[in-house]
Amino acid sequence: MDSITRLSLNQITTERAGLGETVDACARHGVPYVAVWRHKLAETGAERAVRLIRDAGIRVSSLCRGGMFPAATAAERAARIEDNRRAVDDAAALGAEVLILVCGPAPDRDIAAARRMVADGIAALVPYAAQRHVRLGIEPLHPAFAAERSCITTLHEAIALAKKFDAATVGLVADVYHIWWDPALYDELAGATGRLVGFHVSDWLVPVRDIVMNRGMMGDGVIELRRIREAVERAGYLGAIEVEIFNQAVWDTPLDTLVPLVKERYLACV
Amino acid sequence: MDSITRLSLNQITTERAGLGETVDACARHGVPYVAVWRHKLAETGAERAVRLIRDAGIRVSSLCRGGMFPAATAAERAARIEDNRRAVDDAAALGAEVLILVCGPAPDRDIAAARRMVADGIAALVPYAAQRHVRLGIEPLHPAFAAERSCITTLHEAIALAKKFDAATVGLVADVYHIWWDPALYDELAGATGRLVGFHVSDWLVPVRDIVMNRGMMGDGVIELRRIREAVERAGYLGAIEVEIFNQAVWDTPLDTLVPLVKERYLACV
Repeated sequence: MDSITRLSLNQITTERAGLGETVDACARHGVPYVAVWRHKLAETGAERAVRLIRDAGIRVSSLCRGGMFPAATAAERAARIEDNRRAVDDAAALGAEVLILVCGPAPDRDIAAARRMVADGIAALVPYAAQRHVRLGIEPLHPAFAAERSCITTLHEAIALAKKFDAATVGLVADVYHIWWDPALYDELAGATGRLVGFHVSDWLVPVRDIVMNRGMMGDGVIELRRIREAVERAGYLGAIEVEIFNQAVWDTPLDTLVPLVKERYLACV
Repeated sequence: MDSITRLSLNQITTERAGLGETVDACARHGVPYVAVWRHKLAETGAERAVRLIRDAGIRVSSLCRGGMFPAATAAERAARIEDNRRAVDDAAALGAEVLILVCGPAPDRDIAAARRMVADGIAALVPYAAQRHVRLGIEPLHPAFAAERSCITTLHEAIALAKKFDAATVGLVADVYHIWWDPALYDELAGATGRLVGFHVSDWLVPVRDIVMNRGMMGDGVIELRRIREAVERAGYLGAIEVEIFNQAVWDTPLDTLVPLVKERYLACV
């Protein structure tokens, strides 16, 4: 990239900091966007978060996360929808451009049934999201998370799912960590034209041990970041690019060291 | 399953035992097949291995593994082909029904180029395998292994790759651990009709931490084993079913406890 005008610091990259510290670091270092996580928002409270972000002069690229639709009982599934409506409220309050949907795992061995529950859950959420003018972004997760975080694992199925709904309300989010391995990656991104509402970058470190914490700083792993970013742009997405890194060493780095490194690698590698 | 006539004990499930101990345990417990790994074969030597297996009255369902085709230089790629020819020799000596191909990761960030090297490598190996009457079984690996073990990660691409070659020499191997998450799983298995040359079972444990050692005994995880086994049979595969488990607790279990448990779970869950 030739500038940081689209750069967003996803708050999980600064997991040890509170929201105020993170947005202040963004402001100090000229990062225009932040992506907010709900567990962090709960620490701060939505009203105070809105004030902190506004005062820092930062915009919110996304709120992470809604989703987690499949559950064993109808009552629990209804409770999840209700929680998703509160996430939509939070996204609207923050002026977030999109609410990320991590769709959830199956409650049992029937992953096909879980996928149907996801489709039903999104259908139930869409009217409320449309009314609040919040876009929902279906994020396919790496198949390694299929049993614990999302039964939606490929761009192909995320696109098919998104296309059941109005593009004004439902799109999809491409995260390089989750999709880089896909043999149909570039065809799928082309097929997602007009539906992409988010793009997340990090890197895939080698060797893998802990699949959750295996993300690295851009340039430290094996992902062809630039080629994927260019394909995402050809598919029409020119919005914020979030740097989202689950990695203990990154989390242990002081913000005034970390944020300049994020900027440097973003410019050099994305 | 209603009998153990198709059961094969993959040698990695008894990682701490030598080949002689493993085939003796198979014989003691009525398991008709073993799957041999080359690092174990190297400990024993091929000639002695053939004798041990024959004396135990066991058949060899597969030899694991050939593959690892991509490399940075033409000389290294040629050396890999040569090593694959020796694996074909070993498979022929053991009377193995198939040589498993774990295709290998990219030597750099260009996974598309690595996939072409895999196709070229298989093409270079096929004449020798055909001459020695050894079938090659392309095994797509879980995308979590894309950077370290195999750039071939889905049934879809494995089938497309296999179909470049004569079905008498090149087929594919379905391992539930690698494919269970695939949203197109049942369609892909149907599309593999006539090409399946192996079927491996284990289970996907939750939560995942270490992706390599996360396999469990059948029934201990989230995979719909029976449904997948039935789809594999509809696709025409009625050969040996290998139990292949990378798991420290399994490896620490004495063989005369482990093998009866494998049989019990195979009958109950597969």
